[in-house]
Amino acid sequence: MRNLDQDTITQAVIAGFEQTPDPRLKEILTNAVQHLHAFARETRLSEAEWMEGIRFLTAVGQQCDEKRQEFILLSDTLGLSTLAVAMNNPKPAGCTQATVLGPFHVAGAPSYAHGEDVANGAPGVPCLVRGTVRGIAGDALGAARIEVWQADAQGLYDVQRPGLAQHQARGVLHTDAQGRFFFRTVVAEAYPIPADGPVGALLRATRRHPWRPAHLHFMIEAEGYESLVTHVFREGDRYLDSDAVFGVRSSLIAEWVPHDGPEGRHYTLDFDFVMNKAAV
Amino acid sequence: MRNLDQDTITQAVIAGFEQTPDPRLKEILTNAVQHLHAFARETRLSEAEWMEGIRFLTAVGQQCDEKRQEFILLSDTLGLSTLAVAMNNPKPAGCTQATVLGPFHVAGAPSYAHGEDVANGAPGVPCLVRGTVRGIAGDALGAARIEVWQADAQGLYDVQRPGLAQHQARGVLHTDAQGRFFFRTVVAEAYPIPADGPVGALLRATRRHPWRPAHLHFMIEAEGYESLVTHVFREGDRYLDSDAVFGVRSSLIAEWVPHDGPEGRHYTLDFDFVMNKAAV
Ligand SMILES: [Fe+2]
Ligand SMILES: [Fe+2]
Repeated sequence: MRNLDQDTITQAVIAGFEQTPDPRLKEILTNAVQHLHAFARETRLSEAEWMEGIRFLTAVGQQCDEKRQEFILLSDTLGLSTLAVAMNNPKPAGCTQATVLGPFHVAGAPSYAHGEDVANGAPGVPCLVRGTVRGIAGDALGAARIEVWQADAQGLYDVQRPGLAQHQARGVLHTDAQGRFFFRTVVAEAYPIPADGPVGALLRATRRHPWRPAHLHFMIEAEGYESLVTHVFREGDRYLDSDAVFGVRSSLIAEWVPHDGPEGRHYTLDFDFVMNKAAV
Repeated sequence: MRNLDQDTITQAVIAGFEQTPDPRLKEILTNAVQHLHAFARETRLSEAEWMEGIRFLTAVGQQCDEKRQEFILLSDTLGLSTLAVAMNNPKPAGCTQATVLGPFHVAGAPSYAHGEDVANGAPGVPCLVRGTVRGIAGDALGAARIEVWQADAQGLYDVQRPGLAQHQARGVLHTDAQGRFFFRTVVAEAYPIPADGPVGALLRATRRHPWRPAHLHFMIEAEGYESLVTHVFREGDRYLDSDAVFGVRSSLIAEWVPHDGPEGRHYTLDFDFVMNKAAV
């Protein structure tokens, strides 16, 4: 312990975890320190670069508040979120695939009855969303909880609009006995992830664009089934092949169908979700 | 890009760095993403654990302010700081070794003349510190800048005392033409690193103590020489073999010599620094 150098420090730090009561915490920390040190060694990280890393992580943390989660944004843009989702949500064929949660999920979404307008004042072209929630065996799942959230015509989530007194384009519904749901909202548009913080600076430094293809977020919960956190993406969006957070799945892309009537254009979207049984 | 899974996500993220203009940034990010993803894969990180990690890093960032650098504390306690220092400061035999900067260095330390009291009101037993700064060839280095900072009798740095109007136990001196310096201060005591934040929680969860053996911090700069960031540790301290931040070097341990006189006890510390030539 008195003369640790670049060859001995890693084992000394790992030995320091020896008394950790929780074996899983010990395993995670041991692996994290091995990779952290290997990163520094392999890149021959300079002290100035180390300090730049300290500053970057500090800025990411300080960008966070109740409505902004810059570390999730960092995880998303570095593909860690997609990796964690893919690893932890292996779905059998026929089930709706999962994708990333993203940084815009917040607690307290208002409840809506079937047919109500979830947009709640958010700007955009009207859209009717309809679908069903079924189990993998084809059985309708009644009383499933559906939480939906989305960006509006300006590519903004409600939490990105300072001073808004109510949630917009965000709500909770429950399926009927036949597993059906439908609600009104506005068409979701492509949007850039928030680029005014350190993650935005990193994207610019790497010449990556911040855009995500248009999508609705869904979180669906039904008794006896695995929770499903996913998106429905809009067919034809120009960013489907370069999503800034690596979240697109072919099976999650759907048509927003336009209809022109006396009151102008509106869209319909039909999407059926298939849930995987929870492990017993 | 449309159907990335746990096997393909890493290469997709790395390919996204392809247009990065700065080749060093590209190299660092590529290596960081490989290790970050390998960590998640090898530990089979669950989504709950991922979220716990997001929360932990967010808390570390939010603990930081102008006077508290919790990410440096995290780097220190995970041995990353010692690794970076060891890798970047190979010193030839005979030179004073470097050790970690620590989280308590701040800009704006006041200047002192030889013999002045750097303690500036900090509590503790009086101590006279004397030494020289020489080049590796033995030549005295005049006008070398010496910055010193330390914990006081209560184990606290000035920046840990809210509302303090002036810096204490922190100062800048310059060597005379013979490379000599001397200043008065108080005896540095062992102290626990700040344990009221997320890093403290991590230490408790791993049953590690937060203590550092007593030391003075020095940052020394002389024209034509490598900057030296180091400590002088106090011989006999009970934490020399279990420093919470892995910073102890045998060659940096010195005697604080007690002297008893009519005004009570005081100490003297003699330490000579030897600087390495800067690369040309
Ligand atoms: Fe989104
Ligand atoms: Fe210290």
